[in-house]
Amino acid sequence: MKIIRSVKEMQSYAVQQRAQGKTIGLVPTMGFLHQGHLSLLTQIRPKCDFLIVSIFVNPLQFGPAEDYDKYPRDIIRDEKLLSDSSCDILFYPAIDEMYPQGYATYIDVEKLSDKLCGKSRPGHFRGVVTVVAKLFTITQCNIACFGQKDGQQAAIIKKMTQDLNLPVEIVIAPIMREKDGLAMSSRNVYLIGEERQNALCLKKSLDMAANMVKEGKTDTRIIIRNMRKFIELVEGAKIDYIEAVDPDTLEAKTTVEGPTMFALAVFIGRTRLLDNRIITN
Amino acid sequence: MKIIRSVKEMQSYAVQQRAQGKTIGLVPTMGFLHQGHLSLLTQIRPKCDFLIVSIFVNPLQFGPAEDYDKYPRDIIRDEKLLSDSSCDILFYPAIDEMYPQGYATYIDVEKLSDKLCGKSRPGHFRGVVTVVAKLFTITQCNIACFGQKDGQQAAIIKKMTQDLNLPVEIVIAPIMREKDGLAMSSRNVYLIGEERQNALCLKKSLDMAANMVKEGKTDTRIIIRNMRKFIELVEGAKIDYIEAVDPDTLEAKTTVEGPTMFALAVFIGRTRLLDNRIITN
Repeated sequence: MKIIRSVKEMQSYAVQQRAQGKTIGLVPTMGFLHQGHLSLLTQIRPKCDFLIVSIFVNPLQFGPAEDYDKYPRDIIRDEKLLSDSSCDILFYPAIDEMYPQGYATYIDVEKLSDKLCGKSRPGHFRGVVTVVAKLFTITQCNIACFGQKDGQQAAIIKKMTQDLNLPVEIVIAPIMREKDGLAMSSRNVYLIGEERQNALCLKKSLDMAANMVKEGKTDTRIIIRNMRKFIELVEGAKIDYIEAVDPDTLEAKTTVEGPTMFALAVFIGRTRLLDNRIITN
Repeated sequence: MKIIRSVKEMQSYAVQQRAQGKTIGLVPTMGFLHQGHLSLLTQIRPKCDFLIVSIFVNPLQFGPAEDYDKYPRDIIRDEKLLSDSSCDILFYPAIDEMYPQGYATYIDVEKLSDKLCGKSRPGHFRGVVTVVAKLFTITQCNIACFGQKDGQQAAIIKKMTQDLNLPVEIVIAPIMREKDGLAMSSRNVYLIGEERQNALCLKKSLDMAANMVKEGKTDTRIIIRNMRKFIELVEGAKIDYIEAVDPDTLEAKTTVEGPTMFALAVFIGRTRLLDNRIITN
């Protein structure tokens, strides 16, 4: 596995490969890799002549009061995991490679970015979309893979790619879970003691929603009210939001007709966790 | 010359060409072509395996009170001019090809977009930058040419290209002028009767600035005051702005040290005209 830290080197290498008709895959990450990330490689590996994994903790997508500084990092372990995987290139740029002095260009996906997580994290998706577009152009990828765990991010990146005519196929991989059902996330390491167990309430509330739909209930307000009641009983759990939305437009849905994404963000202690499930009646 | 109206067809053709190692040139225009546009083709033709000219009157860059509807158009004449030129492909998309229902993605170059024309045309450069980025990805161009006449646009497009790591070489071609010095512009057809003669005050005021610098005057406030006085004497001329700025950052300069862009926008009757000149002491 080759490690590239320079934007210029990464791009000129990629441009060369593309000019030879090669197919390039990209898995963008913020590092501190887990099985969820590795499943993204597996998803697109068969379609690629070579596969790039980027590791970049993107300051632009963190608010001033958020966890940018303490976001978990372990590049030595990540390098080891990737060199044992099917990754060909680890792209690991420094901040000033990505945002040199005087950087001024930002991409917004309107409407979709203001919903769900966007309400409590203003500017977050502007940061995500901007860095993803940059990673696409730097790596010249034909295909890129993201996890469904960040369901809103997946919808926004698909929308940006379509709107800006980026010639990149976006693959969204299913949520990977720990044995007990907790959605894998780099932030799970923040969970202390009982919090780890309490964090299961996100997944359990989604299962509850799926069961209600299976029983014929389609009023999302009633389903969400039940999820909310369930989570409010869990020690140290504080709901940021629970919503039922169209998985592409993220518009709120009052009834479960066609694919409906139940998405939630819940603080367990001081750790904000996400989960979602697309449920069809 | 081939004419392509579909975004999908244009992009898949371009992707094929790039995979064969071909070099693609792009000249983005809003049509109603003049010698200024044609000089852009000449500038980059030698560097390209094939050359695309786009014609698209971009609604996104016009304010609600601006001249989008009456912006001059003559596609028959443009087609004729281009087929007599070195253009290989005319890309001429419809509005809903470029901005389908639900379009939501916008690119901003901060700071640079708020200055000069940005003050009186809020949102204008957001529209320009967004459509240019889309044209770059649709045509997969390696090189693109813009005119120095829109000096602020040139600076902003260079900045966007650099910030988003777009693998496109930006060439800025010198201002083309009518025999009497008027900067070529599609909007010159708006000038009626005496206005055509009065419009020369833009170029003359820039020559005046160059002469003052040649005489050793470097205080931009004094130079601008003289330009302003001169233009104010012209019948029907109303100054929008006259500024002296760094040609790359567009930051105001108080003295002419190194390349200094004197840029102005002046209404001649109801027609808003631009001109600029980069002057070095």
